[in-house]
Amino acid sequence: MEINLKELHSPADIKHLDIQQLTDLSEELRAILLKKLSAHGGHVGPNLGVVEATVALHYVFDAPTDKLVFDVSHQSYVHKMLTGRIESFLDPAKYDDVTGYTCPRESNYDLFEVGHTSTSISLATGLAKARDLQGGKENVVAFIGDASLGGGEALEALDFAPELGTNFIVILNDNQMSIAENHGELYNHLAELRESNGTSPNNIFKALGYQYIYVREGNDLQSLIRAFRSAKDADHAVLIHINTMKGMGLPCAETHKETFHYHGPFDLKSGAPVVIDDSEDYADMFTCHMLIRMHDDKNVVTLTAGTPGAFGFTPERREVAGKQFVDVGICEQNCTAVAAGLAKGGCRPVFGVMATFIQRAYDQLSHDVAINNLPAVFVDFAGGAMGGLTDMTHLGFFDIAMISNIPNIMFLAPASAEEYISMVDWAIDQTEHPVVIRTPGGDVVHSDRPIDVDFTKYDVVEEGSEVAIIAEGQMLPVALKAAEILKAKGVTPTVINPRMLSQVDSECLDSLKGYRKVITMEDGILDGGFGQKVAAYLGDAPTSVVCLGLQKEFLDRFDVAEVLKANYLTPEQVAEIAQG
Amino acid sequence: MEINLKELHSPADIKHLDIQQLTDLSEELRAILLKKLSAHGGHVGPNLGVVEATVALHYVFDAPTDKLVFDVSHQSYVHKMLTGRIESFLDPAKYDDVTGYTCPRESNYDLFEVGHTSTSISLATGLAKARDLQGGKENVVAFIGDASLGGGEALEALDFAPELGTNFIVILNDNQMSIAENHGELYNHLAELRESNGTSPNNIFKALGYQYIYVREGNDLQSLIRAFRSAKDADHAVLIHINTMKGMGLPCAETHKETFHYHGPFDLKSGAPVVIDDSEDYADMFTCHMLIRMHDDKNVVTLTAGTPGAFGFTPERREVAGKQFVDVGICEQNCTAVAAGLAKGGCRPVFGVMATFIQRAYDQLSHDVAINNLPAVFVDFAGGAMGGLTDMTHLGFFDIAMISNIPNIMFLAPASAEEYISMVDWAIDQTEHPVVIRTPGGDVVHSDRPIDVDFTKYDVVEEGSEVAIIAEGQMLPVALKAAEILKAKGVTPTVINPRMLSQVDSECLDSLKGYRKVITMEDGILDGGFGQKVAAYLGDAPTSVVCLGLQKEFLDRFDVAEVLKANYLTPEQVAEIAQG
Repeated sequence: MEINLKELHSPADIKHLDIQQLTDLSEELRAILLKKLSAHGGHVGPNLGVVEATVALHYVFDAPTDKLVFDVSHQSYVHKMLTGRIESFLDPAKYDDVTGYTCPRESNYDLFEVGHTSTSISLATGLAKARDLQGGKENVVAFIGDASLGGGEALEALDFAPELGTNFIVILNDNQMSIAENHGELYNHLAELRESNGTSPNNIFKALGYQYIYVREGNDLQSLIRAFRSAKDADHAVLIHINTMKGMGLPCAETHKETFHYHGPFDLKSGAPVVIDDSEDYADMFTCHMLIRMHDDKNVVTLTAGTPGAFGFTPERREVAGKQFVDVGICEQNCTAVAAGLAKGGCRPVFGVMATFIQRAYDQLSHDVAINNLPAVFVDFAGGAMGGLTDMTHLGFFDIAMISNIPNIMFLAPASAEEYISMVDWAIDQTEHPVVIRTPGGDVVHSDRPIDVDFTKYDVVEEGSEVAIIAEGQMLPVALKAAEILKAKGVTPTVINPRMLSQVDSECLDSLKGYRKVITMEDGILDGGFGQKVAAYLGDAPTSVVCLGLQKEFLDRFDVAEVLKANYLTPEQVAEIAQG
Repeated sequence: MEINLKELHSPADIKHLDIQQLTDLSEELRAILLKKLSAHGGHVGPNLGVVEATVALHYVFDAPTDKLVFDVSHQSYVHKMLTGRIESFLDPAKYDDVTGYTCPRESNYDLFEVGHTSTSISLATGLAKARDLQGGKENVVAFIGDASLGGGEALEALDFAPELGTNFIVILNDNQMSIAENHGELYNHLAELRESNGTSPNNIFKALGYQYIYVREGNDLQSLIRAFRSAKDADHAVLIHINTMKGMGLPCAETHKETFHYHGPFDLKSGAPVVIDDSEDYADMFTCHMLIRMHDDKNVVTLTAGTPGAFGFTPERREVAGKQFVDVGICEQNCTAVAAGLAKGGCRPVFGVMATFIQRAYDQLSHDVAINNLPAVFVDFAGGAMGGLTDMTHLGFFDIAMISNIPNIMFLAPASAEEYISMVDWAIDQTEHPVVIRTPGGDVVHSDRPIDVDFTKYDVVEEGSEVAIIAEGQMLPVALKAAEILKAKGVTPTVINPRMLSQVDSECLDSLKGYRKVITMEDGILDGGFGQKVAAYLGDAPTSVVCLGLQKEFLDRFDVAEVLKANYLTPEQVAEIAQG
């Protein structure tokens, strides 16, 4: 090796290397990656699979002049290593100096802050169009894989980009996997292309106007460099289909591709997780319950849009569920409308989906589901700041504002495990409305409180006077602690679990009009949330209303406790506000 | 003819007809259609093009047992005629008894209330899955055309449906047009299939696992019936590609396909519109202004997602705009992300889009645009109840709630033509934030009021005391009329144009804390709207706050004045509330 990795400041530093040196470099980068990934966790399989492709990309193209757009950008670790950020992979103290996705705040080699699938071709098309209007000559490259290609936005853009009739390069990283297995016939077609070494006369990319290049050895630098060079500076749209091995270089990741798509810290030799969390878990509770419900009723169907593991549907459990488990691939729009169709057809669909991803189906929620008032059930995971996801591109605290203002949808927020399962059951059994249930974040809370399934009614958990605290699901424990503090100071507040956030319980709110103060608490943005509905309802009452919740902003890798404190959502702060 | 059209109660009534009788029937139905369309207006071209296909559909399949799902369902007029609703086409007094889309409230032959593109294959997939779980044997048919196939949801579903390995029939109505011309390479591929009479070895539908059937004469009953029969009861996915003529039977519609996609009442002989509305129009104003801006600056780009005519970009104006006008097809997701890419690339993108359609790109607005804080501009048309669209599937009054709660986006609502153009100019010239501008509905309002372009500040239009009315853009004229009434009664209210609805002007609101009452007015749903932000901000002030706006509900073909009145949004009602 001629290159000292610490001196790897920019892609210019690898341009003079020969193929053996590039190969050696790739192996070194992979070793560094393995060390960081095993110690820190991250997107293991995707990054190990594209080491060579990323080296070849930076060897052939001239970023940042040439524009590289990574889809999802969970596979951009090697790109970061090659573009001045290798210290954050070499030095454990600096591991967290980089985000897990491309980030323009870190480097001008990163063009977009992304994290949802299927956006790269669209974004790159915009860059290509801008280049053409400005007379630029740079290459524009979209790098896409891991099932992103099957997403609607990607397919729309794949169809549109060649129409520009200009330089546009798509690198399709085909590792034969999504997060879990692939779904959709497109992936059978990719298999047909692989098996024919790219020569199949039927070729969807050629049909859409692309020059098509197949790279059988997608982890071989020479093959990759040759292909990339042949596409560079093309005056038309080129799609390079590279056949890579997800998890390459880590035997357990090569074998257990789904488990190692994303993984926490693990033992490099055995692949065993460093920490085994066997604490009680809402997702697991949901999955086990759904398995029972599906067993008892063949009309109950659980759906996912490519993320079954996110709510506990392991391959074994999917097998148990059989035909009653549907994975449509990472296609939330399709999944939402399929749920609508299932409901119309007399089934009881339950779509398990992360809060950050359900926003990809706003129009389908509103039209296919809500206008038709179909009784589809959506169980929302990782909602709120407490939901567990803290990356800027995976925030879960916009769900209440986004969903609860769509007519006909009942948005429920349970405050305990018992209430959660009761809501899931009630939602499946009723056939009047679409229902969204927000799985609580944080530690599992148990309650033996009787549950009235008329969820349009607020549940008065503690009766008091003068001050009322109305706290949405996962905020209820904080409200109860605030109440303890207040009681110690001689004020007994009324504490209310609103349960349904999509409308107010006017009868209950009317009963509070004589109160000095009403405080609302929600783990979601204030704007468009349930607190503002309460404030508006009580707008002409003498009661003072204080809405507590999150500011409308995109946070990044935040500390949950700090965010709650910054927004006056600790028990002490709430108690203080109640007294003020 | 053996059939008396008035006796056409259900598809059973056409099952015994022979091919000549079916041909005669089709001609009669077309004549009735022409009479109603010319007198009443509607989706002219799409329905004229599918007369034979719809007759063949009901002749071969057995609805409502067999499930027919029409995409957008703007082409379902003949379906309605054949399923018990012919009176609403024969009798002018009953023309409005049917909606312009499929409507389960009207008939059990209509499965879904739809109106946005690209949902049919997804919805039908859900029906097929439900059928299979329940052991049913009926056919499930999705009927899609007019560029719906290029939309992401349709492509996701097209990819997914064959994986079910079961009866599933897609009828692709290829009339070689979108609303305007088609965009996307898929349409070149359809041309390749047409030109090869369906025999091209490259076939995207075969690649995706469909049995493919091509019908060259898509307006010939015999060809259609043969194709539909061959697909009926298939145990796998079949796609029937029918080549039809949009506007068939009306020469002006055959020639001017874009103009006659949707048309108001017209003269049957000449095709000339019955009413020529040459009143001043915001869309026209916007388009003319954009042509100037694009002429002056090659970095300014106007985008549309398949609806250029909706905001005045006629074919002639598109030609003037040249490369600076981009139509991506009916793909709002792609269009939004392309706008993000253009902004990142240094251009100034302005995406003109209907309020009802922008909701199809929530995730792209939030992620591709807002997280990256890219200065893309979105000009929103037909927003609010006053925006001009009253079909349940095209409502424009959810835009404020949906968009204004996304961080980083400035949502502006101008109150006059001058303010509108000033906002458009300001939004194009600034590079700090994404901006959404809501084109006012209703009559054009002019104002010579000086415009302060710090749009984060409310504009106090009339100074008063005791009562303040804060009225969003298109509600300001109502507020000013209410003020007149109040002044006649001795109360001089402060009237405020908030201009930016995505945040409150705290300084201005602080100045109102001594007021007896603050009234907010918006032509949008109250929930998640700007009024609730004001109510929450003033929650602990002694001021009484009353939020006026629309209820959160899906209205259908409503009378604007009635809706405003039902929501206390007339000048008299506002004056009364102000005094109360």
